Amino acid sequence: MAKATFDIGLIGLGTVGSQVAERMLLWGRQLSRRAGVELCLRRVLVRDINKRRSIEISPELLTADPSAILDDPSIDVLIEVAGGNEPMHSYLERAILAGKHVITANKVVMATHGPELLDLAAEKNVDVYFEAAVGGGIPLISAFRTDLQANRIERVSAVINGTTNYVLGRMASAGISLKEAVSEAQVAGFAEADPSDDIGGFDAAYKLAILASIAYEIKVRPQEIYREGIEGVEPVDFRYARELGYAIKLVAHTQRHPGRVEARVHPAMVPLDHPLARVEGAENAVFVEGDLVGQVQLIGQGAGGRPTASAVVGDLVDLARSIRRGVQTRPSFSFDDRIGVIPMGEVETRAYYRIRVDDRAGVLAAISRVFAEEGVSISSVIQKDAWVQDHTAELVVTTHPSRDSNLQRTRERIAELDTVRAVSSFLRVF
Amino acid sequence: MAKATFDIGLIGLGTVGSQVAERMLLWGRQLSRRAGVELCLRRVLVRDINKRRSIEISPELLTADPSAILDDPSIDVLIEVAGGNEPMHSYLERAILAGKHVITANKVVMATHGPELLDLAAEKNVDVYFEAAVGGGIPLISAFRTDLQANRIERVSAVINGTTNYVLGRMASAGISLKEAVSEAQVAGFAEADPSDDIGGFDAAYKLAILASIAYEIKVRPQEIYREGIEGVEPVDFRYARELGYAIKLVAHTQRHPGRVEARVHPAMVPLDHPLARVEGAENAVFVEGDLVGQVQLIGQGAGGRPTASAVVGDLVDLARSIRRGVQTRPSFSFDDRIGVIPMGEVETRAYYRIRVDDRAGVLAAISRVFAEEGVSISSVIQKDAWVQDHTAELVVTTHPSRDSNLQRTRERIAELDTVRAVSSFLRVF
Repeated sequence: MAKATFDIGLIGLGTVGSQVAERMLLWGRQLSRRAGVELCLRRVLVRDINKRRSIEISPELLTADPSAILDDPSIDVLIEVAGGNEPMHSYLERAILAGKHVITANKVVMATHGPELLDLAAEKNVDVYFEAAVGGGIPLISAFRTDLQANRIERVSAVINGTTNYVLGRMASAGISLKEAVSEAQVAGFAEADPSDDIGGFDAAYKLAILASIAYEIKVRPQEIYREGIEGVEPVDFRYARELGYAIKLVAHTQRHPGRVEARVHPAMVPLDHPLARVEGAENAVFVEGDLVGQVQLIGQGAGGRPTASAVVGDLVDLARSIRRGVQTRPSFSFDDRIGVIPMGEVETRAYYRIRVDDRAGVLAAISRVFAEEGVSISSVIQKDAWVQDHTAELVVTTHPSRDSNLQRTRERIAELDTVRAVSSFLRVF
Repeated sequence: MAKATFDIGLIGLGTVGSQVAERMLLWGRQLSRRAGVELCLRRVLVRDINKRRSIEISPELLTADPSAILDDPSIDVLIEVAGGNEPMHSYLERAILAGKHVITANKVVMATHGPELLDLAAEKNVDVYFEAAVGGGIPLISAFRTDLQANRIERVSAVINGTTNYVLGRMASAGISLKEAVSEAQVAGFAEADPSDDIGGFDAAYKLAILASIAYEIKVRPQEIYREGIEGVEPVDFRYARELGYAIKLVAHTQRHPGRVEARVHPAMVPLDHPLARVEGAENAVFVEGDLVGQVQLIGQGAGGRPTASAVVGDLVDLARSIRRGVQTRPSFSFDDRIGVIPMGEVETRAYYRIRVDDRAGVLAAISRVFAEEGVSISSVIQKDAWVQDHTAELVVTTHPSRDSNLQRTRERIAELDTVRAVSSFLRVF
């Protein structure tokens, strides 16, 4: 490379962007030494250039015009930390087409368009780095890309949404409702004003799509992932879970099967002695199992400005080193199109049912018959609370592994029984 | 590179070597695709070419002559998984001088000569990879080398010796002696016939020297690391530890201070709610704290043929990719010579003393006076077991943080008191 500097355009100056800019401005010499080339932040795209900022940044770096970065041939790399699908997807595509390298923290774009962007980048001889898109500063993408390359990845199980983990943790420890716990999380800065992306499991599904795609080298789309949020989990479920020896977590799980993979995000009862049960607060934990390495656990802060900036700037140093060393292109991931995702109905899992029933003889017989007819083997039945005033009681049933479609049909049929008031809760057991 | 293949010489065909060879032979096509170049295992150096092997390997690959690899110009990379200082150190040096890349799992050589080998490799435009030298297949070296480059590393705390962790775990759960637990570990395959390298903390000190060197970019020699083995830990200490809310672990810890670093390996009382306390069996866990990323935990199987082979072959794929892409040299680590290791005496830590005393009035006053005179503040004193037959009792004292030299002097002075039979145990509190 004839150029003496490596020139950077940044899109976004919010929580993550300001940390990225600050590290580059205050640590420039150190980073340039590590990268082996001078790193220069040339332009920052913001919505409002007059807005007051938490960091000191020279006003002439700021622009509100995307083309000031995208169409400036002197910019070598685009760092995008603004988030959301459009216009960011188009910006990244434009940058790649213009021969710029891309570093992004954008899980929506990478989950939805990642394979195409990586293919395009390979064609244009540039790189796309996205370590920050999953798990904040935890080394994940790089682990799959280099460290675990000698392995066939068998499964990935993760708690990768800090908001829901914080919320579920508060519900478990304080016995409060989902709504109260979400309010607390918002006050504590662990949930957004509109938390539906997190609570609904969408965020986790995006991240799992990225992890599964690179773990198996296949194209896993977010919409192919079975997704269920935590809206249905009630305070009493935590009490029963504890009594049965479980914690409740929003689990993202993917597993290799012959010719296909399983990929799902849903709340699950996790045995208390399983390390995933111990992931606390807004922490993220990703457990990878490879055929040679066995199980590797990677744990850390999965979100927030500083951890995410750590991944973004780490990517930048790594990228700049390759450039300095005259690397034309990094190996693009290759994606095998023949391997698809198993429909959830065919996945084998265990389940927990909480059922409100009439408190009288014969109820259990009727319920058991449905389980038997659907071929679902019961592991335990416990009668929990009873209410004298309306002569109802609560039954908790856990099952042995069965096909999810049978578990679901069982659920529907039980709800229709005369003696059953409601299936108040249905959770899979991990 | 004009050559169509990437030719490999392997030294060692034991537990790790046979797994490396097997993966290369059975998975050749897959690995070559990932590496982007055909990987060929050309020669394997063994002590006895006629020995029966657990893997099928063509006899013409085997040689007992080091120069068949080291002096063969067609060999591009030397993989060394034999272990031990000499002759391996000389072999690696010879290979580098001959312009070969090196991948090694050798912690002794990397801890003792790593910085020099890396400098020499930079000079000769070749690479030295050593992911397998610490923590088996856990991505550690690569995390420091790339993912955490945007951080100032503040501290690294680890359980990085599986043998001692297994032994301490058995002592804790079964109440058996060190000797018995070591025998069990040997039967279970977690300890070698001569376990002194592990039990004495030498293995952990080698690994910590490597981690500290790359974490801070300084040269930390194994002999600069304060090292204490687990020989002095007795079964009763586990009982007291549990009562006080601690586990006992062999901890490897390093921490940044202004202009210097702290680096030490010793058995320590770890609070039960600290994640290091939960590391079980032969597992390894490394906790890294960076100023941006916060704490990252990396956990997995730290030893064994398959996990170590995962790291070695992962390094190989990564290295081969760089070669294919025409990279002249990877960035060598740069080591700052001005930063040294703090002598243990100056390190601040908390301590636990188990003291056998005469069971009579005034004993505690005498002991307390020594603590006070040494400026060591006592956190708790508990009288534990008493023995009627010889009128002795056991006192357990825990302290607030003090300089280690004061803690040691206190220990010596207490042992000399008339009313004290012995300081039976001294452990630092993490």
